Amino acid sequence: MRFEARVEITHLPGILDPQGATIERALPALGYDNVSDVRVGKSIRLVLDADDEAAARDQVEEMCRRLLANPVIEAYEIALSELSAP
Amino acid sequence: MRFEARVEITHLPGILDPQGATIERALPALGYDNVSDVRVGKSIRLVLDADDEAAARDQVEEMCRRLLANPVIEAYEIALSELSAP
Repeated sequence: MRFEARVEITHLPGILDPQGATIERALPALGYDNVSDVRVGKSIRLVLDADDEAAARDQVEEMCRRLLANPVIEAYEIALSELSAP
Repeated sequence: MRFEARVEITHLPGILDPQGATIERALPALGYDNVSDVRVGKSIRLVLDADDEAAARDQVEEMCRRLLANPVIEAYEIALSELSAP
């Protein structure tokens, strides 16, 4: 079975987010003064083959811990969807 | 009303994604040889006040066009959820 995984990587609470802070400072100058809590993270999409959804999720989690995210300062969230057979 | 917006910014099809290509090349060396189509984008979360969901969506779209994304090379996808009153 083939799955598309979408991983959202965000900063852990308490970790500085300078990109988000810069956007938040820039928005009022453009006339948007009703926006707060801007946080910038990464979004990774990938396709993988696995026996079932549980196996796919386990593998993506392991990949996050080992390569995609830095667990010391980042959190990750995984969403999986099954792709129809090619 | 207060909304949380989650914006996913990805490369348009045909635009090079060197970060995704690097991850895709690194994965087999770690033992993951069943992964393909790795694409890396940005994820932006923010909180905004608006009269209703349509107004919130319009404003986030305008912010994407003007500041958050580069429409020449990037696509964006917006997901909104209402936050309970503070």
